[in-house]
Amino acid sequence: MSVDGLATLRSAVPGKLSFLSNPRYVNQLADCKASAIILEPEFASACQSALLISSSPYVTYAKASQLFQPNRTSKSGIHPSANVHPSVVIGANVSIACNAVIDADAVIGDDCVIGAGCYIGERSRVGDNSILFANVSLYHDVVIGTNAIIHSSVVIGADGFGFAFDGRKAIKIAQLGGVTIGDNVEIGAGSTIDRGALDDTVVEDGVKIDNQVQIAHNCVIGAHTIVCGCSAIAGSTVIGKYCTIGGGVGVIGHLKIADKVMVSAMSLVSQSIHESGVYSSGTGLLESKEWKRNIVRFRQLDDMAKRLRELEKQTLGK
Amino acid sequence: MSVDGLATLRSAVPGKLSFLSNPRYVNQLADCKASAIILEPEFASACQSALLISSSPYVTYAKASQLFQPNRTSKSGIHPSANVHPSVVIGANVSIACNAVIDADAVIGDDCVIGAGCYIGERSRVGDNSILFANVSLYHDVVIGTNAIIHSSVVIGADGFGFAFDGRKAIKIAQLGGVTIGDNVEIGAGSTIDRGALDDTVVEDGVKIDNQVQIAHNCVIGAHTIVCGCSAIAGSTVIGKYCTIGGGVGVIGHLKIADKVMVSAMSLVSQSIHESGVYSSGTGLLESKEWKRNIVRFRQLDDMAKRLRELEKQTLGK
Amino acid sequence: MSVDGLATLRSAVPGKLSFLSNPRYVNQLADCKASAIILEPEFASACQSALLISSSPYVTYAKASQLFQPNRTSKSGIHPSANVHPSVVIGANVSIACNAVIDADAVIGDDCVIGAGCYIGERSRVGDNSILFANVSLYHDVVIGTNAIIHSSVVIGADGFGFAFDGRKAIKIAQLGGVTIGDNVEIGAGSTIDRGALDDTVVEDGVKIDNQVQIAHNCVIGAHTIVCGCSAIAGSTVIGKYCTIGGGVGVIGHLKIADKVMVSAMSLVSQSIHESGVYSSGTGLLESKEWKRNIVRFRQLDDMAKRLRELEKQTLGK
Repeated sequence: MSVDGLATLRSAVPGKLSFLSNPRYVNQLADCKASAIILEPEFASACQSALLISSSPYVTYAKASQLFQPNRTSKSGIHPSANVHPSVVIGANVSIACNAVIDADAVIGDDCVIGAGCYIGERSRVGDNSILFANVSLYHDVVIGTNAIIHSSVVIGADGFGFAFDGRKAIKIAQLGGVTIGDNVEIGAGSTIDRGALDDTVVEDGVKIDNQVQIAHNCVIGAHTIVCGCSAIAGSTVIGKYCTIGGGVGVIGHLKIADKVMVSAMSLVSQSIHESGVYSSGTGLLESKEWKRNIVRFRQLDDMAKRLRELEKQTLGK
Repeated sequence: MSVDGLATLRSAVPGKLSFLSNPRYVNQLADCKASAIILEPEFASACQSALLISSSPYVTYAKASQLFQPNRTSKSGIHPSANVHPSVVIGANVSIACNAVIDADAVIGDDCVIGAGCYIGERSRVGDNSILFANVSLYHDVVIGTNAIIHSSVVIGADGFGFAFDGRKAIKIAQLGGVTIGDNVEIGAGSTIDRGALDDTVVEDGVKIDNQVQIAHNCVIGAHTIVCGCSAIAGSTVIGKYCTIGGGVGVIGHLKIADKVMVSAMSLVSQSIHESGVYSSGTGLLESKEWKRNIVRFRQLDDMAKRLRELEKQTLGK
Repeated sequence: MSVDGLATLRSAVPGKLSFLSNPRYVNQLADCKASAIILEPEFASACQSALLISSSPYVTYAKASQLFQPNRTSKSGIHPSANVHPSVVIGANVSIACNAVIDADAVIGDDCVIGAGCYIGERSRVGDNSILFANVSLYHDVVIGTNAIIHSSVVIGADGFGFAFDGRKAIKIAQLGGVTIGDNVEIGAGSTIDRGALDDTVVEDGVKIDNQVQIAHNCVIGAHTIVCGCSAIAGSTVIGKYCTIGGGVGVIGHLKIADKVMVSAMSLVSQSIHESGVYSSGTGLLESKEWKRNIVRFRQLDDMAKRLRELEKQTLGK
């Protein structure tokens, strides 16, 4: 038997491999048309298909999915329209697509793929087996580790947002640090990681960053942390390892976040978090009519609290 | 009489066409210098200019504005610096600007305009009469309908953000689906729409997406829905038809939003919405001094509610 | 004595220049290895190094930092792969990098640097001594003043988000205005500034815009205002001079914000602000367990307020 692709339990046809990772869908097993199914041993009897027994079906599905990834390297070699400075060091088996521009003294590791229209600045380095999709911009002195996946329109190494105000105008603080990104990091489309003011901005090994994330100068993102889409980390904040920053989260500057902290979507982290745990802010969604009544009261909340205290004194004598 | 442009009531000079769509500005009619004014019949008497009577002046203004749109196709034809794979199928009267790159087996419909520095991946298809402004990136297997307007730095088809955690690290789930975008869709600058994990991410006909919007893998955005700037829709969420998602809104993953739902700016939608209506979250803006007093009380809100209940028992005996 | 770079008090080694701008770090002076330190006169005695006495050490540091900025102009001249329309007017000492595209009747001032892959549309003008980093997109009729710094993936002049709804579908309002940007403006990576519907969108002198900021059509951003990362200003809003808009802030459309207003991170500004001051919204961050208890009560807030009032009547007779 061979399979030529993956599919969900519901949409699978013969020839496809499927998986059960969420027990909620166990009732879809009986009718599933997949040629084979990845599942935990306890569900094996619910199913007629060939089975791939796994103690972690979602991890097994992830590994299987990679077998079906279309080759993204297109053709190997340096396209004649690419502009590569003669001083650039290029590893073995590298593909550099049309109109990519690589400036002086950059280093591109073995097996890298540089997409169309990418720009790589002076002295920047891309580790082995990394892929930059089309129209990525790396400024100068940006170091990226091995096995990186950098999606289109990402910008790494733009100036951090630093100014000194002289009473009349903002005076630019030159951003003299760089950016250092570890191994096995993925960075989603349109994300931006600024260079440091004096020292480097750092993204450690195994960090996964979704689309349109902003990481300001001198942040440190700890190893294996996940940053979901549209989050923004302000300058000099240090985030621990194995954290999960939900989508649309804001973290203000100069904070320290412990390891294994989870922040729920669209929360504002306005102070350091010293203990692992789950954190949230916001009011939850309401129908606007009801919401308006309640936010009027939110503005009276301090007053309400004082009146409540007064009533307690009067009534309960305490 | 001829007019050579559009202007607001206040700034119009002779030779311009103006319009009254908001009755609030009716008092500007008398002094308006425009050569002609679009307005509803009831306001015709308030005005000396030539009139274009319309039951929907704003719609009439929209249609008139298109007559003054400068031609955006620049010169027709394929610029010699563009890199178009020989297998690409190109329709009639197509313009492909400098340094655009179109990969194998892509299809470009009639009357399309592909801007400078755009990248279009393998097997992707752009429908008739669509325009991609400069530096747009389409990955492979992205299908776009007719009459699309795609603004600069848009990225369509980057990998969805999917990982399986094996206890030590995140294992990438290959994103094997594509993106399907219907007819008459506009997508604002810097927006990102990820490809699906197994099935496609779908944006239906007539959807209008503003700048810097993020649409995650496997979302479905229903026909004629409006998504305002900087909103983010997390994975697998299905949004109905004719919705209006305000600016800066976050919608978490795996939700279902009914048709004709309006969500106000910067709300977090954290559960499915089953009925058409207007929804909001947040506290409203306060001067920070006052805000600080109230958020202290927000943290005591559960305690306050319990104390209130106790007082009611003591005082009212209920 | 010469110095070859800048460093923080803690990391400085001989040969570096350091600075003390925050008195909190005064205890690091004694052990600082820097060859020279910028500080206020009152701290001079705490320190063995050579001193640069300044009444504003942070401003002096900013100016010093610019001396160490690596030259960003790369080589001067127009790269042969750049596509510059013959009608473009180019000033003296301009550098135009690989694959940049400049369309008809654009004007590039003296001493400008146009990065790789940039696109500059018809009739757009870039003032003297401005730098556009790689992959910036300017549409047609965009005017940028002198000394601009525009970072990668910025898009200026895309269509404002304007539609008239005819009952069945959204009809595009052609965006016929332009964008006017003053002198000494910096715009961070991935930010987008839309063109006006009829008049121009305006960014005045000295404005500093961080990464991934969205400025919608017909906004006016007053001189010397700072807009931090990921903020979004909706259409036709007018922001005063010397404001500070924190990160992730949303400002809805058609508002007027006074001069010298500060808005804290992730606030939603939903009405005009008539007086200078500091403004905030949101609930502050809580551990999720505690947060959930409180947001349940937030939904009951109007009810709680009424019950409190009733208790006051019963108990206090008022």
